Amino acid sequence: MEKIFATERLKELLPKVKAFVESELLPLEKDHHTRTATETYTLLNAKRAGVRAAGLWGLHLPKNEGGWGLTLCEFAQLSEAMSRTPFYGQYAFNCQAPDIGNMELLSKFGSEGQKRKFLHPLLEGKIRSCFAMTEPEFAGSNPTRLATAAVKKGDNYVLNGHKWFTSSFEGASFMIVMAVTNPSAPPHQRASMIIVPTDTKGVIHIRKIPIFGEAGGDWASHSEIRLENCEVPVTNLIGEEGQGFKLAQERLGPGRIHHCMRWIGIAEKAFDLMCQRAASREIGQDTLLGEKQFIQGFIAESRVEIDAARLLVLRTAAKIDDEGAGACRNEISGIKFFTANMVLKVLDRAIQVHGALGLSDGTMLATLYQHERGARIWDGADEVHKQSLALGILKSYGLDVKKGK
Amino acid sequence: MEKIFATERLKELLPKVKAFVESELLPLEKDHHTRTATETYTLLNAKRAGVRAAGLWGLHLPKNEGGWGLTLCEFAQLSEAMSRTPFYGQYAFNCQAPDIGNMELLSKFGSEGQKRKFLHPLLEGKIRSCFAMTEPEFAGSNPTRLATAAVKKGDNYVLNGHKWFTSSFEGASFMIVMAVTNPSAPPHQRASMIIVPTDTKGVIHIRKIPIFGEAGGDWASHSEIRLENCEVPVTNLIGEEGQGFKLAQERLGPGRIHHCMRWIGIAEKAFDLMCQRAASREIGQDTLLGEKQFIQGFIAESRVEIDAARLLVLRTAAKIDDEGAGACRNEISGIKFFTANMVLKVLDRAIQVHGALGLSDGTMLATLYQHERGARIWDGADEVHKQSLALGILKSYGLDVKKGK
Amino acid sequence: MEKIFATERLKELLPKVKAFVESELLPLEKDHHTRTATETYTLLNAKRAGVRAAGLWGLHLPKNEGGWGLTLCEFAQLSEAMSRTPFYGQYAFNCQAPDIGNMELLSKFGSEGQKRKFLHPLLEGKIRSCFAMTEPEFAGSNPTRLATAAVKKGDNYVLNGHKWFTSSFEGASFMIVMAVTNPSAPPHQRASMIIVPTDTKGVIHIRKIPIFGEAGGDWASHSEIRLENCEVPVTNLIGEEGQGFKLAQERLGPGRIHHCMRWIGIAEKAFDLMCQRAASREIGQDTLLGEKQFIQGFIAESRVEIDAARLLVLRTAAKIDDEGAGACRNEISGIKFFTANMVLKVLDRAIQVHGALGLSDGTMLATLYQHERGARIWDGADEVHKQSLALGILKSYGLDVKKGK
Amino acid sequence: MEKIFATERLKELLPKVKAFVESELLPLEKDHHTRTATETYTLLNAKRAGVRAAGLWGLHLPKNEGGWGLTLCEFAQLSEAMSRTPFYGQYAFNCQAPDIGNMELLSKFGSEGQKRKFLHPLLEGKIRSCFAMTEPEFAGSNPTRLATAAVKKGDNYVLNGHKWFTSSFEGASFMIVMAVTNPSAPPHQRASMIIVPTDTKGVIHIRKIPIFGEAGGDWASHSEIRLENCEVPVTNLIGEEGQGFKLAQERLGPGRIHHCMRWIGIAEKAFDLMCQRAASREIGQDTLLGEKQFIQGFIAESRVEIDAARLLVLRTAAKIDDEGAGACRNEISGIKFFTANMVLKVLDRAIQVHGALGLSDGTMLATLYQHERGARIWDGADEVHKQSLALGILKSYGLDVKKGK
Repeated sequence: MEKIFATERLKELLPKVKAFVESELLPLEKDHHTRTATETYTLLNAKRAGVRAAGLWGLHLPKNEGGWGLTLCEFAQLSEAMSRTPFYGQYAFNCQAPDIGNMELLSKFGSEGQKRKFLHPLLEGKIRSCFAMTEPEFAGSNPTRLATAAVKKGDNYVLNGHKWFTSSFEGASFMIVMAVTNPSAPPHQRASMIIVPTDTKGVIHIRKIPIFGEAGGDWASHSEIRLENCEVPVTNLIGEEGQGFKLAQERLGPGRIHHCMRWIGIAEKAFDLMCQRAASREIGQDTLLGEKQFIQGFIAESRVEIDAARLLVLRTAAKIDDEGAGACRNEISGIKFFTANMVLKVLDRAIQVHGALGLSDGTMLATLYQHERGARIWDGADEVHKQSLALGILKSYGLDVKKGK
Repeated sequence: MEKIFATERLKELLPKVKAFVESELLPLEKDHHTRTATETYTLLNAKRAGVRAAGLWGLHLPKNEGGWGLTLCEFAQLSEAMSRTPFYGQYAFNCQAPDIGNMELLSKFGSEGQKRKFLHPLLEGKIRSCFAMTEPEFAGSNPTRLATAAVKKGDNYVLNGHKWFTSSFEGASFMIVMAVTNPSAPPHQRASMIIVPTDTKGVIHIRKIPIFGEAGGDWASHSEIRLENCEVPVTNLIGEEGQGFKLAQERLGPGRIHHCMRWIGIAEKAFDLMCQRAASREIGQDTLLGEKQFIQGFIAESRVEIDAARLLVLRTAAKIDDEGAGACRNEISGIKFFTANMVLKVLDRAIQVHGALGLSDGTMLATLYQHERGARIWDGADEVHKQSLALGILKSYGLDVKKGK
Repeated sequence: MEKIFATERLKELLPKVKAFVESELLPLEKDHHTRTATETYTLLNAKRAGVRAAGLWGLHLPKNEGGWGLTLCEFAQLSEAMSRTPFYGQYAFNCQAPDIGNMELLSKFGSEGQKRKFLHPLLEGKIRSCFAMTEPEFAGSNPTRLATAAVKKGDNYVLNGHKWFTSSFEGASFMIVMAVTNPSAPPHQRASMIIVPTDTKGVIHIRKIPIFGEAGGDWASHSEIRLENCEVPVTNLIGEEGQGFKLAQERLGPGRIHHCMRWIGIAEKAFDLMCQRAASREIGQDTLLGEKQFIQGFIAESRVEIDAARLLVLRTAAKIDDEGAGACRNEISGIKFFTANMVLKVLDRAIQVHGALGLSDGTMLATLYQHERGARIWDGADEVHKQSLALGILKSYGLDVKKGK
Repeated sequence: MEKIFATERLKELLPKVKAFVESELLPLEKDHHTRTATETYTLLNAKRAGVRAAGLWGLHLPKNEGGWGLTLCEFAQLSEAMSRTPFYGQYAFNCQAPDIGNMELLSKFGSEGQKRKFLHPLLEGKIRSCFAMTEPEFAGSNPTRLATAAVKKGDNYVLNGHKWFTSSFEGASFMIVMAVTNPSAPPHQRASMIIVPTDTKGVIHIRKIPIFGEAGGDWASHSEIRLENCEVPVTNLIGEEGQGFKLAQERLGPGRIHHCMRWIGIAEKAFDLMCQRAASREIGQDTLLGEKQFIQGFIAESRVEIDAARLLVLRTAAKIDDEGAGACRNEISGIKFFTANMVLKVLDRAIQVHGALGLSDGTMLATLYQHERGARIWDGADEVHKQSLALGILKSYGLDVKKGK
């Protein structure tokens, strides 16, 4: 635990979370590569009872939703601990993306009816949800460009559109869809967020998209879908019409903290495996891998980079707690690209230290690299965040350009 | 074609190879991600008739084996052209690894009997073969450490051992096994190469090892196997007892040229996709991705790095042609790590330029990254080649240390 | 100010230090390249009166030496502020290296007589001092290898040896010399620290060594010296015989924090210049440099890397405050190489953004690069610190090798 | 010698050039840091007699100017050999920049009168010249933006303007000035090149600009100058009015080959020093620096990068010989940034391997770094060349944007 970010509650909770992860979840990794997705989620759903029994349910929730009311900075540190088993940790604690983002969103901006119908079953872990934003026809780097439209027709919205990389669609009960409701408004006020149950007529699942070669299943999958004249009641609108981007920003701020802490947890896992290997693998008589400077360089640089990322991310989380995500755009851009690059570098070094074993299913390393290569792309590519951060800074030096230039 | 490495034969052959690849093989990529391995190799075996018909069979072979007698430097350039479709090109032309290495080896060092029984069917494309060297218990960086043993018993060798990452074992008719025959000799004279037909009693296939998440099949797979009291006639020994490392060096010299040229071909493919994307993807009204400097940087650096790699590799091939692989150890180490790192950087940039699409099966990029991440590991990890090259250089400055220090 | 490292005292002192630096010292930079060293130090010595008048004297001192008793973590943040003018800031506040290290050392370990004679005039800014450790004949990476010897003769030590890179020798009243007193003891117990007044007979100044082309003068210079039968009283021994390395470690812990904070201050200065330039330099009609992504990349990466370094260094300072430098060896190694590399990268980018102007004396950037290229070398080269950190970590994984292997 | 770029003439000339450099020039480096510029050029001018005596005068000249008529690719290899002593080599052979560029220009485009008056004394080494293009007020990245104007007045041009980084102005007999003669023409047809003798009234030398801290002198200096109503006869116009950029491109093509080959020669020098140090510096009992992998990594990577640069540059020189510089814009951009970055990386590693000695005047390394940091800036910054190369490539993919966008 970073002393400067420690709190009393954290001192109580963190060891418990770590212990649960270590004893209940980590052993599941042994069969990770041979179990089906269905088997995995059956097992994990059962583990949730243990989470409740350990008094660790709802760590991410505000008190009024029955949670702990932790600060983002506190929760972030628990989230890192869960990422010791990145495919199981958050899920077992019911604070996996994209559900955590949807819960945060509905908790803050949902109507009473939406909370009752959609939020509460989520909080209880009875259902899952997803978030449909990205469209294949438009660059994700410019979120104001959307073709999915929601047209009012009586008391309903009629949605038509094409989405992909809709994570966790398979098995989800509803999606939150980003759709244009006000096409003639200024770009940032055109879209709205609308809840669409997945069993709505016209929700067409095209396929699961393989990511770095793995299509996955259930929660761990990404879908391409089409909406064809899907009708949902206007009461499924979250907030007001045209607030889509505003809400997306609210959702993304903490969302990026969650991503970053997961990456930090993964990096620590990779670091641990790398050190274990370095300290035990013989490369000659009486010579261990860890005695070679190239390997020492990997270890030393990784140690400092992981620590740097954690300090940057927790500092940002603390600032979000104090001043809101809107005041932290620069910091959020900075941690997003720094941490995403860090975790991939550390994973790459850990793979290299393991040699052929690192490429295989003999460790979790290759799987993690496959799953996280997208870190530099999703939620804003490196290039977008670097430009945003620089322009955010240069504004204070008097340079005020439109982002797209 | 690099003018400085052009020859008359190459001017004749290269356009033909390119044309065949473009018209006959490239279209197969469309269904690459949905076809089974069996379907793929059925298709490719059929394409081999076309290769023969086009007069392009046996490009890698010496004249006395019915080939063209091309120099390594000439063949290398054809090999790059085949790598426009890296999963199909070399295979269709019957010069895929590991068979090409085995053919080169048997052609140079095989007995008449070995040639008749093992080499000729390979040359005709009737059978496939593999090469079993790496063992899970020992670091590949130090090839003198092997536990697999071949003990003479009458007119037979009895082999026992454990091998993995035996590429293309599935479907192969025989393996060339590196085994210790002379345990009390000096380290580099302990091992021998012995031909073991895969249907020999005691050859046990444990499993195909997934590489970066993909187990593959047939030629495109890597196996873990066990040899339990496998008996083969002593006439299956290649060359003489204790020559294993000498032969391995002979096999690896040209083998690394083949790897490097495949990587250069892959890098050109990725570069082409990256440029196509940059020149066509809109990221805003009237703005294309290629107008952004970050993307321009990826393109400019990739262009120079690919060209640098090609020049370095062809120069080395030409030197091997002139002076033999033994005189080129430093150069071979240099091109190995430089080219392996280059192709991964170019693939990574091309993926980044494609955004989420680049992670998916919508292009060949993610698949190629998965398959080639091992480039920095197999046939000598980066770290090993850097140390070797430096020590090779420092020797001429009077520093003479044992490599392992 | 980083909120998480803020204290009440710091909130009071930091604005005062910043204001003094901004109004009194920064304007001196205008003539930096044309003034002589003598003129500069005459000016700065005069500024010290202002420091006293502003109640800012002795910021680095414990209360019992008449100082503020600040924690290392508090002082570190003031030190960054002073580094806004890296050649003047610390000097004006009388906490410039190497004097600050000598003051810390004598304050903790000096005898009453040593304090009276050497420490007190230093504290008052009446004299300067230096520290003679590095020898041309031996690698600085292995500090136990020293040839300078101090032999007891009656009540005196007689010193003979050859030192270089003795910073600030010119104009110093005394040096603290690292010399072997116990040649037959174990390597880490052979050397002692002995105070040698510079006017001692046998102290021979060979030359000022130019660093990246600049020989400098007075405080800002580095000398090569020879000790030929220099006699000093045995009472000039600091601590006990054989404690040289122990004391050096004590001196280096905080010393590295001081270096790192200076580098962070320099990096902020370079960052500020880079942003000013990016926001104002036209590169075409209506196009400013800061609109180009390459420049934005420099700015974004620099911002995150500077912040990362500061958080890492302050966290380490806080841990030294809590647990002592001995408990922080890994952290100190980590921040040393991370921060040294960071400042050089940021300076290099800032130079690049300024184009030809950046190479010239038109900004402080080239001068700072010249002065700080050594950051990756002095006080332990990158390579040494990376190895130390890795071995420190691997020890907890069961690998225990001697460092030098 | 790279076998693929060897020619008969080169086999004859290269050993002679190397021998002259080794025996006559290299020994001068010993006193490089203590000699004045005047002393240096007195010595070097004397060495020119030796060059003539050895039959090595005029290596860069066409036959009709009394030279050897070497190809650019041949001369490039001699130029690398001269760069073994980068401050003396080219100068002694009278093919130092900027004179070589001016000779090439006047030889191709000068009138008979200009040749007689300006070119012939240059060829004989009797005078020196310079080239005044860059202006402090405008970004060098966009050469069409110039304020210096030449207005016709009778048979004269009257020039007014402000130039800086005019290399080798001190001691030069004339400058070639880039000045706007046709302000209302399209941007690339506004400027002309005009010869201005340095003793013309109104040529005002403001100062020598220190580069990375060194103002230098004579040939090795860079000046800021002002032109105030300087009158020169219209016959001093080179080529035609408005041809300034066309001529500049002609001048820059080979000019960049010359720069690149000098950097390659410097890199080889640094590499040699690095290896010598690695093979001889003890860092512990019986352990030499070169046994450490970090150092081995520096050496291995440097070796490959230098070789890559040389192959790329010579290939480009050969293509310029065949097809002219206009056909090689992409290649020239590529080698410019690749080689400039390469030489700085190699110098930096060599400095690091030398430790404190590397920072001092104990080797040529720090001096070379100071002098060549500008490599990434002059003649087009990295960023400009990367953008140019990418846009040159993307044009063939259908993207046609204006460079400045």
